Amino acid sequence: MLRVYVTVVGGSVERNENVLKIAEDVGMYIAERDAILVCGGKGGVMEAAARGAKKAGGITVGILPGVSRDEANPYIDIAIPTGLLHARNAINVLAGDAVIVIGGGPGTLSEVGLALAYGKPVVAVKGTGGVADLLAGKTIRGSRIHAAHNPKEAVELALKLALGNRFDDF
Amino acid sequence: MLRVYVTVVGGSVERNENVLKIAEDVGMYIAERDAILVCGGKGGVMEAAARGAKKAGGITVGILPGVSRDEANPYIDIAIPTGLLHARNAINVLAGDAVIVIGGGPGTLSEVGLALAYGKPVVAVKGTGGVADLLAGKTIRGSRIHAAHNPKEAVELALKLALGNRFDDF
Amino acid sequence: MLRVYVTVVGGSVERNENVLKIAEDVGMYIAERDAILVCGGKGGVMEAAARGAKKAGGITVGILPGVSRDEANPYIDIAIPTGLLHARNAINVLAGDAVIVIGGGPGTLSEVGLALAYGKPVVAVKGTGGVADLLAGKTIRGSRIHAAHNPKEAVELALKLALGNRFDDF
Amino acid sequence: MLRVYVTVVGGSVERNENVLKIAEDVGMYIAERDAILVCGGKGGVMEAAARGAKKAGGITVGILPGVSRDEANPYIDIAIPTGLLHARNAINVLAGDAVIVIGGGPGTLSEVGLALAYGKPVVAVKGTGGVADLLAGKTIRGSRIHAAHNPKEAVELALKLALGNRFDDF
Repeated sequence: MLRVYVTVVGGSVERNENVLKIAEDVGMYIAERDAILVCGGKGGVMEAAARGAKKAGGITVGILPGVSRDEANPYIDIAIPTGLLHARNAINVLAGDAVIVIGGGPGTLSEVGLALAYGKPVVAVKGTGGVADLLAGKTIRGSRIHAAHNPKEAVELALKLALGNRFDDF
Repeated sequence: MLRVYVTVVGGSVERNENVLKIAEDVGMYIAERDAILVCGGKGGVMEAAARGAKKAGGITVGILPGVSRDEANPYIDIAIPTGLLHARNAINVLAGDAVIVIGGGPGTLSEVGLALAYGKPVVAVKGTGGVADLLAGKTIRGSRIHAAHNPKEAVELALKLALGNRFDDF
Repeated sequence: MLRVYVTVVGGSVERNENVLKIAEDVGMYIAERDAILVCGGKGGVMEAAARGAKKAGGITVGILPGVSRDEANPYIDIAIPTGLLHARNAINVLAGDAVIVIGGGPGTLSEVGLALAYGKPVVAVKGTGGVADLLAGKTIRGSRIHAAHNPKEAVELALKLALGNRFDDF
Repeated sequence: MLRVYVTVVGGSVERNENVLKIAEDVGMYIAERDAILVCGGKGGVMEAAARGAKKAGGITVGILPGVSRDEANPYIDIAIPTGLLHARNAINVLAGDAVIVIGGGPGTLSEVGLALAYGKPVVAVKGTGGVADLLAGKTIRGSRIHAAHNPKEAVELALKLALGNRFDDF
C-alpha cells in the first residue's frame, strides 16, 4: 500500500527504436525504484515500458480499453479489462501517483489532460516526438507539464513530484 | 435522429468577456443551423454556449461529471449526471458529431485528445486562448485540429466536417 | 431544469406483446405527466416505452452502450453514445429521478442494483416477468423495490417517490 | 497472463462474523489455487476476502470507486482508483474470469447483473444472506447464478466455470 505507482503513457503504435528504448529504460528505472508501473497495457510505448520493468524485476499493471485480458502485452502482470474504450484513459492516469509521457498521439494527449485535471504531476520526456515534445515545458491554465531529458531524470522527477503531491482535492 | 450534434468544449471558469461572447455566438450559430448543442453542462464557456443556443431557440444537452442534475447551468435542457468525474469527458465528445474548442484548460485538453481518438472532427477557435490557441492548426499523429477564426466559421466548418465523417471505425 | 426524469429499464429483446404494451403505456403516462423519459435507447422494452412517450408528445433520451448514435431506436430524441458498454447502465439510472422496471434480464438486474446504490426510487411492474417479477416488493439491505400492478400506478408511484427523494447523499 | 482472476463481491458493511469468515476462507482458497483475487477494495466482505488471500500468500487487486488509493483496505496489493463511483462495479466483475457472491446489498446486486451481462460465471455462497441467498440457484433470462454451499465448493466451482468459459462474445 505504501508503494508509489507511476503511469507511463505513449503511443501504442510507436515504432521508433530510440523512443522504444527510452520507454524500456523508463520502465526499468521505475522498477529499480520499487515503484509499480501502470500503463494502458497494449503495444508500442506501453509494451516497451512494461518489458523494461519486468527485466528489472518490477510489477506491471495494464488498464485495458476492451473487455478481454487477451489484449494485454506479454509483460503485464495484472491486466484489468475495463470495457470503457477510450474512457479507460481516465483510470490509467488516476491509478498513477505521477504520469510520464513518451511520444504519443491523441490518446496520449487525452491522458495528459486527464492527469492534469486530476491534479497528477506530469513529466514529458523531450526528444520522443508526438505529444511529449508538443507539451514538454508548457503550462496549461496553471498546470505544468514538466520536461525531462532522459529516462532517469524523468523517473526521478516523477517520483519526487509524486511524493510531494496530495491528490485529495478533487 | 437525423439532427447533427455539436459538442462545445472550453473552460468552466472562463471569465474573459470576449471569449464568453465567442462561446455564446458559437452556441447561437449551432442552434440556427438546427444542430443540437452538447457540452459538459457546467459554467464558463459551457454556460455561455448553452445560453447562446437557447436564445436562438435551440436544444442543449449537458453531460455532467457528478451525480446530481443540480450542477447543470440554467441553459441546459437535458442534463445527464454521469457520476464518472473527469471520465465523463469521453462521453461529452462521443455525443457530438464534431467538437468545437474555445479556450480551455486541462479538461479541455483531454476532450481534444478523446475526440481525436474517437475519430471526431475538431475545430479550435483561434484567439480564445488556452488549449484552443495551443492546438489550433496542429496535427497530432495524423489527426488535425482545424483552426477557425470566428464563431460562424467554426460552426460551418464543424457541420461540414461532421457530415463528411464516418465514426464506425473504432 | 425543473422537469422530472424517469428511467425505464427492461429487456432489449423482449417479445411478449403484453409486456411491450405495458412498456408503451408506461412511456405514454410519463409523457402525459410532462416527465422526460430516459432509457438505454435500444430495442424491446426501451423501444416500446420510447414509442409510447413520443405518441403522447413527450421527450425521450437514450443512453447508448456503444460509440454510435445509429444503435438508438427510432423513438429517441436525444441519443447519447457512451462507449462504456454495460457500464453505461450506471448513467442510465443516474439520469432518472426514479426508475421503472419492466421484465428484464441481467442488464436490468444491474440497473436495479445501481439505482438502489445511488439512492433512486425503484418501481417494478408486476406481471411483466424477468427481473421485475423476481424483485417486485423485495427489500435488499434496507432498499425497497416498490411493486406496481399496472402502468399508470407505476408512473404515479415513480413520480411521487421522485419528488420525495433527495439524491444529494452519495 | 495465464493466471485465473476471481472476483469476490459482497457487502462493504457486512458485520456478521460467520459471513466474514466465509469470505476470508473464499479468499484463502482462491490464493491457494494460485488465482488472483479481485474485489472492490473496500471493507466488509471485500476486506475479509483480501485478508484471507494474503494470509495464504496470494495476490489481491482492489478496483476502487473513488479517486484515492487511500480508500483501499490494508490487504490490497494493487489498488486502482477509478473515479467512476458505482460504475466501477462493471470493471470489478469484468476483471474476473468468474465472480463469487457473498451476502451483499444493492452494489452486489448490480455486480451480479453486470457479471451475467458480460457472460461471466457467477457463484453465490448459500447461507450468507443478502443478494447471495436471494439469487443462488436462480436463472435470469437464461443466465444461471450457481449455488455453492461452502467456501471450498464456491472456489472450485468458480475456477471450473472460469476455465470452461469463453468471454469473447460481447
